[in-house]
Amino acid sequence: MTRLVIIGGSDAGIAAALRAREVDPSAEVTVVVADAYPNYSICGLPFYLSGEVPDWHALAHRTAAGIEGRGVTLLLDHTARAIDPTRHEVAVTDRAGHTHSLAYDRLVIATGAVPLRPRIAGIDLPGVYALHSMGEAFAVHERLTERAPAPCAAVIIGGGYIGVEMADALTHRGLAVTLVEQAPAMLTTVDPSLGAAVGAELARHGVAVATGVRVEEIAREGESLVVAGSGGFRATGGLVLAIVGVRPQAELAQAAGVAMGERGAIRVTRAMETAVADIYAAGDCVETWDRLLCRPTYLPLGTTAHKQGRVAGENAVGGARQFPGSFGTQVVKVFDLAAAGTGLGEEAARRAGFDPLTVEVTVPDHKAYYPGAQELRIRVTGDRRTGDLLGAQMLGSWRAEVATRIDVFAAALFSGLTVDELSDLDLSYTPPLGSPWDAVQMAGQEWTRAQARRLSR
Amino acid sequence: MTRLVIIGGSDAGIAAALRAREVDPSAEVTVVVADAYPNYSICGLPFYLSGEVPDWHALAHRTAAGIEGRGVTLLLDHTARAIDPTRHEVAVTDRAGHTHSLAYDRLVIATGAVPLRPRIAGIDLPGVYALHSMGEAFAVHERLTERAPAPCAAVIIGGGYIGVEMADALTHRGLAVTLVEQAPAMLTTVDPSLGAAVGAELARHGVAVATGVRVEEIAREGESLVVAGSGGFRATGGLVLAIVGVRPQAELAQAAGVAMGERGAIRVTRAMETAVADIYAAGDCVETWDRLLCRPTYLPLGTTAHKQGRVAGENAVGGARQFPGSFGTQVVKVFDLAAAGTGLGEEAARRAGFDPLTVEVTVPDHKAYYPGAQELRIRVTGDRRTGDLLGAQMLGSWRAEVATRIDVFAAALFSGLTVDELSDLDLSYTPPLGSPWDAVQMAGQEWTRAQARRLSR
Repeated sequence: MTRLVIIGGSDAGIAAALRAREVDPSAEVTVVVADAYPNYSICGLPFYLSGEVPDWHALAHRTAAGIEGRGVTLLLDHTARAIDPTRHEVAVTDRAGHTHSLAYDRLVIATGAVPLRPRIAGIDLPGVYALHSMGEAFAVHERLTERAPAPCAAVIIGGGYIGVEMADALTHRGLAVTLVEQAPAMLTTVDPSLGAAVGAELARHGVAVATGVRVEEIAREGESLVVAGSGGFRATGGLVLAIVGVRPQAELAQAAGVAMGERGAIRVTRAMETAVADIYAAGDCVETWDRLLCRPTYLPLGTTAHKQGRVAGENAVGGARQFPGSFGTQVVKVFDLAAAGTGLGEEAARRAGFDPLTVEVTVPDHKAYYPGAQELRIRVTGDRRTGDLLGAQMLGSWRAEVATRIDVFAAALFSGLTVDELSDLDLSYTPPLGSPWDAVQMAGQEWTRAQARRLSR
Repeated sequence: MTRLVIIGGSDAGIAAALRAREVDPSAEVTVVVADAYPNYSICGLPFYLSGEVPDWHALAHRTAAGIEGRGVTLLLDHTARAIDPTRHEVAVTDRAGHTHSLAYDRLVIATGAVPLRPRIAGIDLPGVYALHSMGEAFAVHERLTERAPAPCAAVIIGGGYIGVEMADALTHRGLAVTLVEQAPAMLTTVDPSLGAAVGAELARHGVAVATGVRVEEIAREGESLVVAGSGGFRATGGLVLAIVGVRPQAELAQAAGVAMGERGAIRVTRAMETAVADIYAAGDCVETWDRLLCRPTYLPLGTTAHKQGRVAGENAVGGARQFPGSFGTQVVKVFDLAAAGTGLGEEAARRAGFDPLTVEVTVPDHKAYYPGAQELRIRVTGDRRTGDLLGAQMLGSWRAEVATRIDVFAAALFSGLTVDELSDLDLSYTPPLGSPWDAVQMAGQEWTRAQARRLSR
């Protein structure tokens, strides 16, 4: 019987707990949860705040009762204070402030990430939120619904995927939204041309989009907050969201002598072992194996946290599973569009030492003669020398199967296919939903033609 | 300069022509087209007859001018009469009935398939159609629109994918439709339980569905046709569609001494070579390499015809490409549902000598808390001993990314993944479009659990 203690009750921690119990039903699994919200879908917060998900309880991937029903003990509102790797103990403070020790045979650290805080004046003012926890989501919700007068305008700092989702969400809720981003376009995870299209979609729905602006200050003026930045940028709102990324929350691990890796994240093997015996780690607090670059990177994503947690939980009770690695596959819905990507774009591929060639095609999602065909913009990046697929990005109607089409690219990347081999995939076809050569394959064929033109020069 | 002659102007023939010109711009490519409709989307006929595609011209994948603009000579309304492999000539009859010879260096036979005709009394009556050519589609269209009175009821014999599409199409057009199928459920390409759900969807939209009925006779009664079958089945309509499958149209090849393979289809290598020098063949007239069974089968599909044609065209001008093989990946839209499959189901896997285990899950297409979540029924079949993925089938809302989710399974099959490895794929996630473990992965995990339960007994 293994005594497994898990620090952290979000995606990675709960995935580890459930998988451990699944693999070894005799394991005694305890999860230390810092708040009262184990296994909540943090990715769902924008849809709670938009009003599309009226009851926040619905955001739970699983209820606490459901988790406990599978033999996992949850210590809610408990904070892990220290890990003693020698004695195999974790010091934990409970709701009442009492500290006690939890003994473990194996430990999984899944302490997640904390929001980066831009170093600007006014970042601590009331009404400025980072929106990374249920607690902050409740605060924003209260600000939106319970104060009189409720704010009718909001400023969002950061055009990453949560920033653009929140711009959509607050617009949906009826607020006038300004979104300000330091880079030249939204979503630095895709090519700037696609990021610009996402910006245009936001603007089409009334969001004031400012790019290339460095925010310098947040100040209070009466009931409002004023955000000021480079080039004379100035925007006013009743609340400000500063959503500029996260950093690993690894202090507890570091204090216990666990080695750190990429960008301050916990160093782990692909079995999710840390450098300290019997301690595993998973999720947004650890470095992530990049399957394409074959090296660790820092790439916090919910999908990855689930996978890493599952591996850590399995291995902590005697398994031998390897985390397969990430391509950073992502999709975001912004109003009527979905923007998705997997693997490397042109610039990232060049920086990584590949000899990239990127083509972009605009093709219909299904046969144009069938009503409702939508254009998909697809960018494919491959290595000019080897022909290997390196990555793909896609933009189109959120109803045009953008997400799962990127998944086909992701599956091809997983198996190390060349771009040319995309045409060998036996994909499905019916005129209302596709083409005899699916959009994915049309894009691949255009890449192959471009490569041939280069070779023939 | 290669003189390439292609017999057949549908998917395989035109794909061969275009690919040959792409690979070797000096090739002299001539396509003998039996009618005036080169490269028409036969798969689109149901949507023309439903009225959703008002102009049949839109069904062309490419216009004749577009094809000729790429350096291909089209001989429309020309019929190939005989092939002389020794002299490298094809005898062709033109519109006026004159016969002349076309000399070739390489020949591609892409003569397609012809409908199977059930051996029942009345199959030749006026008003009974097989719907496999543009000409027959026009005849049906005329029957539906130009006669007074237009028929208000139709009987469809055969619940394959074209049969169910036509039941949808004619219902959409306002006809009362009876669909009669000999098997116990619709769509013999998926498990009967999914086929039954497709039948229920048809019934929900007013189609009279009769299964397990052997049609015995079609008779004329006044202006109507009466279809009678086993168990006292009787249905009346102004037109009857008999859509019970196809057989390869290989007589021309056979007469030229080309060897035949599976089910009367032309025997080909994976390079799409026939047994006769300089003669290639592709599309519905040839046998198809089954990538899972590693043997030829007969599996006529538009996607496959495009792929085989492309390979034949490339190789005919000196290339060395191999047809990658098919998993029989298919999808069909029936009213609000899509039903899709790839690879082997339980029964087919057992017949093929595998030790199959199949699980079915019902999971949401995206996070249930986000509005509009739809249930997907997913069946996964894997080999109990090896853990290899053998196939998957899916049924759900046609808006729930069923088609491209089957494509993820198809990509996994292509690369020979185990069922367990589905969970290693780095798939995309956003709550409106998916889950941290995509539905594909949830199904795979349920299969792995079922396999583990079997092993632990």
